[in-house]
Amino acid sequence: MTQRILGLDPGLAILGFGVLDCQNRGQLDESSVAILDFGVIETPAKTAVGDRLCTIYDDLHSLIQQWQPDLISIEKLFFYRMGNTILVAQARGVIMLVLAQQKIPFIEFTPAQVKQALTGYGNADKQAVQAAVARELNLASIPRPDDAADALALALAAWFQR
Amino acid sequence: MTQRILGLDPGLAILGFGVLDCQNRGQLDESSVAILDFGVIETPAKTAVGDRLCTIYDDLHSLIQQWQPDLISIEKLFFYRMGNTILVAQARGVIMLVLAQQKIPFIEFTPAQVKQALTGYGNADKQAVQAAVARELNLASIPRPDDAADALALALAAWFQR
Repeated sequence: MTQRILGLDPGLAILGFGVLDCQNRGQLDESSVAILDFGVIETPAKTAVGDRLCTIYDDLHSLIQQWQPDLISIEKLFFYRMGNTILVAQARGVIMLVLAQQKIPFIEFTPAQVKQALTGYGNADKQAVQAAVARELNLASIPRPDDAADALALALAAWFQR
Repeated sequence: MTQRILGLDPGLAILGFGVLDCQNRGQLDESSVAILDFGVIETPAKTAVGDRLCTIYDDLHSLIQQWQPDLISIEKLFFYRMGNTILVAQARGVIMLVLAQQKIPFIEFTPAQVKQALTGYGNADKQAVQAAVARELNLASIPRPDDAADALALALAAWFQR
């Protein structure tokens, strides 16, 4: 049975996404995970916040309708920078709304949990996590931009935890 | 000309609202402002956050369609309690989305600006602000719950600033 997982790295300016088809073959091997899509939803900084949230709302609905994921893996929000947290949280509220409207189950991971799942080490640096994403997905290079690679890491973390 | 103002006091558990019809008669007097509605949108704490955001999304769309406000006055979000800020910001993201979808202009006030507008003193206590709301709206008692009174105060602040 194939499980389709959509990873989401929330943000207002850039929302990273990655779509995987994951298949259980007794034990995990490289060929059991296939990338279907990855990329970012971007909203221009000069636009009004409400219009940026509309873009996220519309584009995320389209993305979910296009790929029909069985599960969504999303980064758990924590306080990282005082100024940005409210903007990111507002965007995340719209994301959580869309997931509930589409009735898609989701799982949340902290950045440390993703690092642990991908590299076995919760304090791994960004490069090590991205290298693990490329290796697990059998890619010649690291997916760009970073937000898309982070979203693929979230999707993989959800798959590894099954 | 009458201006219909919807005041919104954002929250995830309780979103206060108040609707006023405000009429300019040369100079402000009591009879120039009429209350059309006030109350709260409540979401149960035991429900999943996504479902609570769906309730806010649906109920706020209904409220705006019912009253067709010309202007919305909403409290500016600031950091007040670490734990709650992310939840309130997520709810506020959904509110900002709805305002943008319905293309209603809005104005933001900090709590201090509302206090200043209602009582002439930016550090006024809650009771003084609520008493000012009752006086300005010619009410025998203070509107309940507090969140609805706060929303009416926001609507009045927007009117006073015209």
